[in-house]
Amino acid sequence: MGKLWDKGYELNKVVERFTVGDDYKLDLELVRWDCAGSIAHAAMLAKIGILTRDEYERLRKRLVEIVALHARDEFAILPAEEDVHTAVEGDLTKRLGDVGKKLHTARSRNDQVLLDLRLYMRDKLLTLFELACDMGGLLADFAEKHKEVPIVGRTHYQRAMPSSVGLWAGAIAESLLDDLALLRAAYQVADQCPLGSAASYGVNLDIDRQMVSDLLGFARVQNNALYANNSRGKVEAIALSALSQIMLDLSKMANDIIFWSMPEFGYFLLPQDLCGGSSLMPQKRNPALFELTRAKTAVVIACHLQVMEIIRPLISGYHRDFQETKRPLMTGMEITQAALQVCGLGLSRLSVDEKRCIAAFTPEVFATDRVLDMVKGGAPFRDAYQQVAHSLEKTAMEDPRANIRKKTHLGATGNLGLDLARKRLGDERGWLNQARAAWVPAIEKLLK
Amino acid sequence: MGKLWDKGYELNKVVERFTVGDDYKLDLELVRWDCAGSIAHAAMLAKIGILTRDEYERLRKRLVEIVALHARDEFAILPAEEDVHTAVEGDLTKRLGDVGKKLHTARSRNDQVLLDLRLYMRDKLLTLFELACDMGGLLADFAEKHKEVPIVGRTHYQRAMPSSVGLWAGAIAESLLDDLALLRAAYQVADQCPLGSAASYGVNLDIDRQMVSDLLGFARVQNNALYANNSRGKVEAIALSALSQIMLDLSKMANDIIFWSMPEFGYFLLPQDLCGGSSLMPQKRNPALFELTRAKTAVVIACHLQVMEIIRPLISGYHRDFQETKRPLMTGMEITQAALQVCGLGLSRLSVDEKRCIAAFTPEVFATDRVLDMVKGGAPFRDAYQQVAHSLEKTAMEDPRANIRKKTHLGATGNLGLDLARKRLGDERGWLNQARAAWVPAIEKLLK
Amino acid sequence: MGKLWDKGYELNKVVERFTVGDDYKLDLELVRWDCAGSIAHAAMLAKIGILTRDEYERLRKRLVEIVALHARDEFAILPAEEDVHTAVEGDLTKRLGDVGKKLHTARSRNDQVLLDLRLYMRDKLLTLFELACDMGGLLADFAEKHKEVPIVGRTHYQRAMPSSVGLWAGAIAESLLDDLALLRAAYQVADQCPLGSAASYGVNLDIDRQMVSDLLGFARVQNNALYANNSRGKVEAIALSALSQIMLDLSKMANDIIFWSMPEFGYFLLPQDLCGGSSLMPQKRNPALFELTRAKTAVVIACHLQVMEIIRPLISGYHRDFQETKRPLMTGMEITQAALQVCGLGLSRLSVDEKRCIAAFTPEVFATDRVLDMVKGGAPFRDAYQQVAHSLEKTAMEDPRANIRKKTHLGATGNLGLDLARKRLGDERGWLNQARAAWVPAIEKLLK
Amino acid sequence: MGKLWDKGYELNKVVERFTVGDDYKLDLELVRWDCAGSIAHAAMLAKIGILTRDEYERLRKRLVEIVALHARDEFAILPAEEDVHTAVEGDLTKRLGDVGKKLHTARSRNDQVLLDLRLYMRDKLLTLFELACDMGGLLADFAEKHKEVPIVGRTHYQRAMPSSVGLWAGAIAESLLDDLALLRAAYQVADQCPLGSAASYGVNLDIDRQMVSDLLGFARVQNNALYANNSRGKVEAIALSALSQIMLDLSKMANDIIFWSMPEFGYFLLPQDLCGGSSLMPQKRNPALFELTRAKTAVVIACHLQVMEIIRPLISGYHRDFQETKRPLMTGMEITQAALQVCGLGLSRLSVDEKRCIAAFTPEVFATDRVLDMVKGGAPFRDAYQQVAHSLEKTAMEDPRANIRKKTHLGATGNLGLDLARKRLGDERGWLNQARAAWVPAIEKLLK
Repeated sequence: MGKLWDKGYELNKVVERFTVGDDYKLDLELVRWDCAGSIAHAAMLAKIGILTRDEYERLRKRLVEIVALHARDEFAILPAEEDVHTAVEGDLTKRLGDVGKKLHTARSRNDQVLLDLRLYMRDKLLTLFELACDMGGLLADFAEKHKEVPIVGRTHYQRAMPSSVGLWAGAIAESLLDDLALLRAAYQVADQCPLGSAASYGVNLDIDRQMVSDLLGFARVQNNALYANNSRGKVEAIALSALSQIMLDLSKMANDIIFWSMPEFGYFLLPQDLCGGSSLMPQKRNPALFELTRAKTAVVIACHLQVMEIIRPLISGYHRDFQETKRPLMTGMEITQAALQVCGLGLSRLSVDEKRCIAAFTPEVFATDRVLDMVKGGAPFRDAYQQVAHSLEKTAMEDPRANIRKKTHLGATGNLGLDLARKRLGDERGWLNQARAAWVPAIEKLLK
Repeated sequence: MGKLWDKGYELNKVVERFTVGDDYKLDLELVRWDCAGSIAHAAMLAKIGILTRDEYERLRKRLVEIVALHARDEFAILPAEEDVHTAVEGDLTKRLGDVGKKLHTARSRNDQVLLDLRLYMRDKLLTLFELACDMGGLLADFAEKHKEVPIVGRTHYQRAMPSSVGLWAGAIAESLLDDLALLRAAYQVADQCPLGSAASYGVNLDIDRQMVSDLLGFARVQNNALYANNSRGKVEAIALSALSQIMLDLSKMANDIIFWSMPEFGYFLLPQDLCGGSSLMPQKRNPALFELTRAKTAVVIACHLQVMEIIRPLISGYHRDFQETKRPLMTGMEITQAALQVCGLGLSRLSVDEKRCIAAFTPEVFATDRVLDMVKGGAPFRDAYQQVAHSLEKTAMEDPRANIRKKTHLGATGNLGLDLARKRLGDERGWLNQARAAWVPAIEKLLK
Repeated sequence: MGKLWDKGYELNKVVERFTVGDDYKLDLELVRWDCAGSIAHAAMLAKIGILTRDEYERLRKRLVEIVALHARDEFAILPAEEDVHTAVEGDLTKRLGDVGKKLHTARSRNDQVLLDLRLYMRDKLLTLFELACDMGGLLADFAEKHKEVPIVGRTHYQRAMPSSVGLWAGAIAESLLDDLALLRAAYQVADQCPLGSAASYGVNLDIDRQMVSDLLGFARVQNNALYANNSRGKVEAIALSALSQIMLDLSKMANDIIFWSMPEFGYFLLPQDLCGGSSLMPQKRNPALFELTRAKTAVVIACHLQVMEIIRPLISGYHRDFQETKRPLMTGMEITQAALQVCGLGLSRLSVDEKRCIAAFTPEVFATDRVLDMVKGGAPFRDAYQQVAHSLEKTAMEDPRANIRKKTHLGATGNLGLDLARKRLGDERGWLNQARAAWVPAIEKLLK
Repeated sequence: MGKLWDKGYELNKVVERFTVGDDYKLDLELVRWDCAGSIAHAAMLAKIGILTRDEYERLRKRLVEIVALHARDEFAILPAEEDVHTAVEGDLTKRLGDVGKKLHTARSRNDQVLLDLRLYMRDKLLTLFELACDMGGLLADFAEKHKEVPIVGRTHYQRAMPSSVGLWAGAIAESLLDDLALLRAAYQVADQCPLGSAASYGVNLDIDRQMVSDLLGFARVQNNALYANNSRGKVEAIALSALSQIMLDLSKMANDIIFWSMPEFGYFLLPQDLCGGSSLMPQKRNPALFELTRAKTAVVIACHLQVMEIIRPLISGYHRDFQETKRPLMTGMEITQAALQVCGLGLSRLSVDEKRCIAAFTPEVFATDRVLDMVKGGAPFRDAYQQVAHSLEKTAMEDPRANIRKKTHLGATGNLGLDLARKRLGDERGWLNQARAAWVPAIEKLLK
């Protein structure tokens, strides 16, 4: 028998691919954050006397250049460099000599990964927050526009009671609004500066962790050095949990649109140019965007699970296992961001066929209203229910539009409460602006 | 071939067991909440003229009695009744006649389940919040007490750098502190009154949803009637996500304790009476509590996943599928509550063997400190690193206690920041008290 | 602050509930297997001289009585006894004195759990195998009966091409047939006798593991003592993986039936007595059985995941964590068995409305057939496709029945290949009979 | 507010990236299979008269050339082409004109994906089968070589009973052997030719599906056209389930090696060149290969879950959601293959320090043996157990080597049964050779 590791690949390639993973690709997302973090770290080292002022300035200058190179797609991370940290350190050492080597003082590579990912998450979570607000606003507008379009509300996939396009869109909007609380909690956990954890146990130098945290605009230092390390994966999982909820909302919207776009219903119509065709069937209009939103929801949930399960078996302290949490985090972020954008596009182009919506009503949809009419007239509910149930065929048809207009309790079709949703959205946007103001200028100052 | 459904069981039993599930058992946790919800609903029906004042009083009186019966274990839910709602309605109808039937006006059974579970979660999340605060406090005390006990910090399971029992316990404490933000977010999402969703689409009666919400002490009405229904499972998943994080923290603590209680380490010693024995091996002291904490963490994560996956495929509106989300919610709550209690007990009884902790140190544990000493003396980090790496055998031993005392940057062994943690705990307890004050008196008033 | 473990429960109750779990309830399923395993173990101990012949006979007699008591619901496992093993051993010791104590020689409690669960799985997997064969047969019959009933085949939920009820039912049947290979593989892994692993490392007695294995009708001894222990959870996960696939098939069937039972389609009609009603809406016919099949599929998948995740972090050897794998195994088995029975019942009562099936056809459903007609006439596929795509409105209507009859390649609507499926089913039943013959008589002999 | 889809990216890029995914990258793995499948399909079209003999030959010639180009890394799939099918069809049409367009007759793109992935899985599953056999052989050799090296067997992470390196390695070997049954079952389900499903409902041409299946060396046609489509994702999940079990075995091995390589144990020593270092700590020898094996096990399990969850909500027929099942399949395959190779390398370079293994024994490890010695002398087990438990400190030390040699029942340290394992491995390799012989020559003939 040949050697196990000689089957089909060279050994080195297999080991390298197994251990390095795709960091050198994924890390392109982190160049800006790595450089900003290094500048803040260098400034602190200068303050405590490890670097001279001049050394700091030279490091800073080149790090700012690297950010600019990267912005022009001119900064590469080679597979042999493995990750952004080595690529940047290599560049600095090549250009600046010894001072490049000094920069690593008092921090470990894991420290850097922790910090870069924290900066990345802080940024991405706010981007998603904004997109979720936008999507909520779009849904509220859609609800407003179609608030008088009745549709047959369903339970158990069966016809149930009168509903409206407005009630439907408002429901998705409010669901997204609730997710904002999760994004905010995830943001608050992420908004702590981990640098200084070093190899999980701190260092015997008088580093000034508060200074680094302030320079980077963090809300606070993530105090305990071991916790800063142990939280790798934890913070990612918390973020992915919030993302899963957003995806579940989009998935419900997608499912509903796919469902009601079936020709047998025809409530919704997607424009041809947003639909995929079929390679075999010339007549097809496939709601590809929404099908993929549905499928990718399962992907994001799996990303979330995966991160939790990677960290679950580990004792305290750093382990190489953490490396595997980066890809699911970035995958989840990328999918959720794209899904919000794509679903926003889809919704904005979705037309509603009011005639078909109304044509779908049948008398039985009004049966429950009839029961409650009898109750208003004094009958006990269960008796009225029995009576209507036994003469369903006599239930009279009603004007669906009038019906939905008449239901005016809080949150019913005739009282959607969109102002309330918009008020909440406004408050959330206020929070977003504050959150951004807390660090965007700090980062810009560092990288200027 | 015999009939498929005749293999081994009678048909009826199989169908019943499949469709009813264990609600009649699980719902014993909900009796109090179901009765409180019904009283609030009845008060509202009285206000809008569906019930007379007298009818309301009679209903209220009996519902309060049922709560008392249940508190004395004298209220049963029979399998044939399927759930608490039917059991309570049955009791009312039997005792009060027609008025019992009227109570169901303007609400569906799903409405009731939604409300009961919301009241249950609101209560349970605060219980867990309190227990997590207690556990955080216990860990901070443990850290304080043992802050000068050095242990060998590990990375990759290998010896890495000096650490301390204080740093370790403080790390778990801060991790739990961060989870409180998740519990709070989950609580805020749960603290909305869903009643009035009816069959997902509201009703044609002028119900006063705000009044019901206020009577039950909710922060607000969950406005959109369809969203109130669609959020079934969503709110549960959000709660379970927070619980998963708590369990992951306890699991890390448990793993660490199991690890360091191995005779080869011996840092920690569990008292005999908390250890399981072995049926075959007379010498065993098994850390059963902590092993089960570790295993049950996987159970809670699976509960979370399960709830998300049950609701993911569904279109808007009520479906029977929702029924299956109740058990994982309750399982997750019960496990997390017990795990906090049991781990608290375990930690409070854990002794630390300082001698063995110190005996475990070897010179190499100080290698990184040596590197940084050279850096302080002016050497570039990478050069100092190379030099120490090439003469590891010459690394001198150091007094571990002195070592950990000297590391005084934020969050290092000599500066644990436990006051900061305690300050945060105090603030969190303040929030808890406010949260409780917002509804506990309201519920007590209803049930008085 | 009060003690953490005093909140709401007494300590002992909490610890007990946390560590014992529900074994005392779950283990009622294992009484028969535990007794059979103990008889085989006792016979072996008698052979190697640990028990006298007389001691063996007394043990055997009482164990057979316990099985009989259990069959009459007269054998209890008290919570204080924790599990079936203690309950049985306690009974034996009480009645037979010292000889009861001797029975535990050369085995650990984990040994017993391993064996009991192996016997349980061996039995349950064959029960499920039989039920899956039955369901496959039922589906083949349904396909045969309705093979000439055309339905509109869908892709992307949109109308695609002509299909038939026969093609649909045949597809589910063949999917279940493929699952049988998984059940068989799971069975083969389970059909190994683990007894003799003891505390994972064997014993210093000349136990005859082959004899025990033969007495219990196993295909072979699970050789390596440590592997026998390490495989706890692994064998369970393999079984649950097969069950997940069965559930996924049933879920697809359920989803399809729910979908096509919507009044807008009306292809299928469920009888009223199998449908749940609504507490609020008198007109509802809810496909509860199928909704719950769909939801419970997520539960079984979570059971599978949970077992894998419980065992994943563990080093070799026994750990208490294994305890938590029993409940998901039994839950998965119970759900899958019930789902097969309940879906079998549902399918057998499902009526097909041929008129509505045919009425659903529109000309566009035949567009692809028109393209291929042109190809048969010599046009390149892509050109024909373009031509039909640009004149979809001219596509002619066709007789759906004639259409599906004409498609006669393997596996098309006019050539369903049900004989092939039935032939495979016959072979599978042959395997089932052999598998049962290999151990059922052995167990009956032991318990006689 | 700006448009939702304008935040940060251009719309087209977002939509394209969302819908196309990475197929154009992943599909490089499928070029060979796509061409082979197309040749077989073309041969069949020639037989039934859709293509002339000459057209077939021209297509075949170019397809063989594409395979050769791809083998030399000279065949590209552009992002704009989206997938291998379009890239190949584009190439053919550009070079051969109309005949390239004809090739798509009677098949859909999904048909092609189904077929390509089936061919890919058939090949990969056998590669993994071979690697798992190799790994099993390596473990058996390792066990043989170290069968007399005693180690302290553990339960609950505590010292339990005497074990041996041989018992440990043999346990992993037997676990992998059991996995082969799962790979075989997965292979048998995958080894069915799906081509001819078209858009899920077959075609109105007399295609010869048996001929295509035979040309490609499949065991049989996957008969039902709708099932062929519905099985997308199902077959992938079945394969991933088998892979999960292999990974769980490797993970247990990895965990054990990490554990026993800790300096406090020192049973195992990994060579320096296979260990990762630390960027901060000069003394570290990190078992990176094994840590990543452990972490990637969670990734493969998540891939498995993800595929099941993507397909679970879908009704019968093709949906775009299926696209998302390709990446997790390929990720799972790639990780498992690399993990087998890398773990094989690690194990082959692992040295065992017999002295430290022996030095780790303490008298208590022999306590159970003492109990059973007393039982052999006639004492009831429970009494002997009590007696040893109460005088643990008097337990005598024993020679560990002699101890493990003396335990000679099946599967104990003195009777590992490695010949049995090797015999099973030989049989499995026989099956592998047969499986390969069934299709490798057929594919070579097609591509010659």
